[in-house]
Amino acid sequence: MTESREDGVAPTGAGALEDQAYREAVVDLLAAIAYGEISAFERLVEDARLAPTLQDKLAVARMACAEFGHVELLQARIAELGADPYAAMAPFQQPLDMFHAHTAPADWYEGLVKAYVGDGLAADFYREIAAYLDPRTRDVVIASLADAGHSEFVVDRVQAAIAADRRLGGRLALWGRRLMGEALTQAQRVAGERDALSALLAGGVDRPALDLAAIGRMFARITELHAERMAKLGLDS
Amino acid sequence: MTESREDGVAPTGAGALEDQAYREAVVDLLAAIAYGEISAFERLVEDARLAPTLQDKLAVARMACAEFGHVELLQARIAELGADPYAAMAPFQQPLDMFHAHTAPADWYEGLVKAYVGDGLAADFYREIAAYLDPRTRDVVIASLADAGHSEFVVDRVQAAIAADRRLGGRLALWGRRLMGEALTQAQRVAGERDALSALLAGGVDRPALDLAAIGRMFARITELHAERMAKLGLDS
Repeated sequence: MTESREDGVAPTGAGALEDQAYREAVVDLLAAIAYGEISAFERLVEDARLAPTLQDKLAVARMACAEFGHVELLQARIAELGADPYAAMAPFQQPLDMFHAHTAPADWYEGLVKAYVGDGLAADFYREIAAYLDPRTRDVVIASLADAGHSEFVVDRVQAAIAADRRLGGRLALWGRRLMGEALTQAQRVAGERDALSALLAGGVDRPALDLAAIGRMFARITELHAERMAKLGLDS
Repeated sequence: MTESREDGVAPTGAGALEDQAYREAVVDLLAAIAYGEISAFERLVEDARLAPTLQDKLAVARMACAEFGHVELLQARIAELGADPYAAMAPFQQPLDMFHAHTAPADWYEGLVKAYVGDGLAADFYREIAAYLDPRTRDVVIASLADAGHSEFVVDRVQAAIAADRRLGGRLALWGRRLMGEALTQAQRVAGERDALSALLAGGVDRPALDLAAIGRMFARITELHAERMAKLGLDS
């Protein structure tokens, strides 16, 4: 029943859903992702106004609608687990809105880097957590993280802009570090306030625990992927 | 080859596409619809901020993404006809942005009425014009006008709000008339500036002309549908 994985963590069975604490944690997680997609959608559309051309504006609007398209799937799973999706999302509105308020891009390129780096960070984090979920929830989370390749557009635009203006590269590298810092700050705040989510990491019957060493490895992987993404844009991390 | 229709207008065959003036008119029309959907998308997302609840905000965001989803189809048809979609949309940016600037909603309900009445008016107008198009273009236009039933949400919300506050009904009725007026002003401006579009109405080889009497009947139908929509919201037109 519990096949062993490469990292020694046994997968979570569907039976975990009978554990009330696990269900609460899963609802929290899905709600955080869902509100994250909603707020990302709003910000992308707003930032799209900074686009230098109508083509660029549409490319960002497509990214925004792709994010928004995942919300329904997440809400449906929350409802399946017996919770109200709107009540479930409420605790995440403030920290996510705060993240966006603290990282309002000053220009088009900061907006592009934020869309790419911010989405990437969130997706890496949720993908790590997904490994500890029951199969059905895991599928929903993974499906909600697909970006349909829209972000290749960001890589092209940022690389071209840096090539044309070296100082921009320095500014955007600092910006990427600030995004990482703000994301960690808000993530820690959420983890501190949501007991159920933290308990998920502590494990339970039919569920593997995430020990400190595993958490350390997880953050190392997330940091490494962030650095790879920055490098792909042509930026130091 | 030309079956007769109820209103005595013969349908336009695919052969019309060999007529350069017809192609230009069709590209203009598709581009006007496409930019209309883009600007409606942006405004809906902006107006969604006025939503009293997260549920309402998401309902409007869903309407916005549905509109945006049509843009690709329209752009593909413009490209098929040998034109650049972005160059084709450029002449329509100013009049459509102007329409939105002149009809910025003062509150959530004005935003809802605008989404419902504005979209409805545009759809009725384009559906009328679609009758004069070659079959393939007509299908693209009709598909781009589908609202997927999202607007029933508007009817529910506006009816409930008017029932709770009669004065709101009076204000929104005036607002509906203003939307109709602004739409006509901008439509006339576009028709005056775009020779190809006006020529479409004048007909050509393999294409029926739209005589003055037919144009009169068209506007009578559009006005009537507008009145029906206002009545459905519980508003005088």
